[in-house]
Amino acid sequence: MNNPLKLGIAGLGTVGTGLLHIFQKNSEKINLASGRPIKVAAVSARNRNKDRGLALSHYEWFDDPVKMAEDPSIDVFVELIGGEEGVARSSVEAALNAKKHVVTANKALLAVHGVALSGLAEKNDVALNFEAAIAGGIPVVKTMRESLQGNTITRVYGILNGTCNYILTKMEREGQAYDEALKDAQDAGFAEVDPTFDVGGFDAAHKLSLLTSLAFGTEISFENIYIEGISSISPIDIEVATDLGYRIKLLGVAVQTEDGIEQRVHPTMVPFGSAIAEVNGVTNCVNIEGNFVGDVTLVGAGAGAGPTASSVMADIIDVARGVIFPPFVVPTNQLVAYKRARMRQHEGRYYIRLSVYDRPGAFAAIANRMAEQEISLESIVQRGSEVGQVHQGNQNTPQSSFESPIPVILITHKTCENFIRKALEGIEADGNIASRPQMIRIENL
Amino acid sequence: MNNPLKLGIAGLGTVGTGLLHIFQKNSEKINLASGRPIKVAAVSARNRNKDRGLALSHYEWFDDPVKMAEDPSIDVFVELIGGEEGVARSSVEAALNAKKHVVTANKALLAVHGVALSGLAEKNDVALNFEAAIAGGIPVVKTMRESLQGNTITRVYGILNGTCNYILTKMEREGQAYDEALKDAQDAGFAEVDPTFDVGGFDAAHKLSLLTSLAFGTEISFENIYIEGISSISPIDIEVATDLGYRIKLLGVAVQTEDGIEQRVHPTMVPFGSAIAEVNGVTNCVNIEGNFVGDVTLVGAGAGAGPTASSVMADIIDVARGVIFPPFVVPTNQLVAYKRARMRQHEGRYYIRLSVYDRPGAFAAIANRMAEQEISLESIVQRGSEVGQVHQGNQNTPQSSFESPIPVILITHKTCENFIRKALEGIEADGNIASRPQMIRIENL
Repeated sequence: MNNPLKLGIAGLGTVGTGLLHIFQKNSEKINLASGRPIKVAAVSARNRNKDRGLALSHYEWFDDPVKMAEDPSIDVFVELIGGEEGVARSSVEAALNAKKHVVTANKALLAVHGVALSGLAEKNDVALNFEAAIAGGIPVVKTMRESLQGNTITRVYGILNGTCNYILTKMEREGQAYDEALKDAQDAGFAEVDPTFDVGGFDAAHKLSLLTSLAFGTEISFENIYIEGISSISPIDIEVATDLGYRIKLLGVAVQTEDGIEQRVHPTMVPFGSAIAEVNGVTNCVNIEGNFVGDVTLVGAGAGAGPTASSVMADIIDVARGVIFPPFVVPTNQLVAYKRARMRQHEGRYYIRLSVYDRPGAFAAIANRMAEQEISLESIVQRGSEVGQVHQGNQNTPQSSFESPIPVILITHKTCENFIRKALEGIEADGNIASRPQMIRIENL
Repeated sequence: MNNPLKLGIAGLGTVGTGLLHIFQKNSEKINLASGRPIKVAAVSARNRNKDRGLALSHYEWFDDPVKMAEDPSIDVFVELIGGEEGVARSSVEAALNAKKHVVTANKALLAVHGVALSGLAEKNDVALNFEAAIAGGIPVVKTMRESLQGNTITRVYGILNGTCNYILTKMEREGQAYDEALKDAQDAGFAEVDPTFDVGGFDAAHKLSLLTSLAFGTEISFENIYIEGISSISPIDIEVATDLGYRIKLLGVAVQTEDGIEQRVHPTMVPFGSAIAEVNGVTNCVNIEGNFVGDVTLVGAGAGAGPTASSVMADIIDVARGVIFPPFVVPTNQLVAYKRARMRQHEGRYYIRLSVYDRPGAFAAIANRMAEQEISLESIVQRGSEVGQVHQGNQNTPQSSFESPIPVILITHKTCENFIRKALEGIEADGNIASRPQMIRIENL
């Protein structure tokens, strides 16, 4: 165990350079904790001459990460390139086939090819570690893979995308519209120029697909995730949520139901005072519910050079110490086929915001559509005036404003999503609303 | 790896029977995750015939846990007896000497004998795992021992005692006095008949001593912890804290300072909206601050059969998989001697509540004592009337209430604890206060 563990790092962006900084600063401590020296032997990146504020001359340089992955000079291939295909995929496959341990932060790659790569790692008797792929610096993979194995996991959920949480926090605290808050996030470096991947919920869904597999011992099934992003959230939704005692968060949720597993990413109203409601800004959190431990909540930085590299480092130290777990806990061929619970069978409470034309009969028609589906209402909120006026019309109102739409918010009791969708289809067909209904799920976490 | 790992469980109280329940319910999953079968071979407890709601006939029975610890029929000795001396200590020592792995939930034992036992485990090349000894079901030992090793830890703190947190939450939410809330805690089974060990801060200090060693790689030093319990907290402290935007929590804090390590357990005012302020009831939390990861916060059940046994199980699975870390990360002989930072050198903001006789000059004398120590005040609060009246007296008040004490609260700017203590000694000597000053440290976590 005194021979050094030799790393090849592919990708020298934020996380890759963060990892080199950790080595420069904490190397002595790391070697002590690892019980043997760890050294960076080689690096590979697109541009050799870019100024990264770090000397790379100590490390062997590879233009091609696949070559590095196969090179006898390294024991561990650290993939920090990103992306589900291309050199990220080919270099990881090359490394595993060459019997090198792989440490990666690449959630997209694992969400799509995780099971195959897990099998490849197993076949070659090497590690495939990915602590940094989910929620940055939060040690959620280790917690699920090792700490909670005495439990049957019943649910896992979390705030898995810092960009979305930053935008929602800005909207709530500063009353900003979505577009404004997004621009702020872009200016602050928390959102990409093309933000679709984050705000559309896809990044959170990649992470959720991995959490689901770790939680339930199932095959990864990114394609079965129900995904809604945050771009439809408006200031009035945030205001009403606040009045009702809720905060809106983009949650990823995976839950075992009688019909299979629900995997979903969508804006969710969570009550003030719940641990998850108090996670603001770019911070991430993951909550795991086990049948003996109850709820364990992990909170920390979900992105950034330092936190992500800290998790990469933990994976490397595990390899150095010989701590090798199957990537998804159980042997790959024992991962259970994923059985999807239909989103239409989801049960819960709903927030519905309608932009209702202020005309006679409009509200009665809406109420009838809800009644047809046997949805009972917990409360009805009309912003700015009394609810009673809506369906009666107001004879004193001049014609011009008589037809102008008024926001009406319905909070339902627990019901089935199928009923909600049918009711909303009926409401849209009736033609009394000025825009598509807004629907946000409520969870009492 | 197909031979079963055989356990001997000593102590069949809450946690011991919880552990047997986990085996009965989740055994298949545990064996799959462990890569080999794990079985309970033997048990030992004080009373063989007590009804525990579980059949014990499958297990070999030992009256003497030391005998069981040495018996060839077991591979792992699970110590759930408790207490820093007696059979808990002797059986753990016997097990280690017999080259059996030890899993324990016993913080008192480790706080006092941890370094010696760590050395013994190392000498015999076996594990000494204690996830359940700190914060019940929260995976904090694994997080510190494995996940955050890329970081230099700068501070660790947490709510480490559920009894205290339950009492403080009750006082805040229901306006109860300390004695009432304690009685409620006792009735609910969250406090012992003799609650000193919990409410006096000693249990939290045991846990903190272990966190400190894990964080800083130092020898365990329970005897150097500054300890204050919660029994002096009164409803007025809670009320004023709420008004000022703080919650009062019993925190354990270990922080690296220039002068050494500060280890302290005391009531602390933490701001609303901080993660730790939102941890209520019997829930525990631990926050670890690393130089790359930033803050990682872990929240969960700090006690109870299920959560504690879940952590014991995780330690057992690690042994089954051959994941053996040195108990305190670094080899025992490389643990650094503990260097204590004096509590008198602690710097921070302070809440001071004085019960001041309403007489001329009283407030001026207090203000002078603070000024002598160069303590500047951020705010002065007098409950029920204007502050200005205090030092002027009130000529219209009848003599009887003229001398009745009035609560005056001072919030200081950042200062040194030494100055605070000197100022308070002076104030007490002046004789203008009716009872001992209350002093609570404020932390902006």
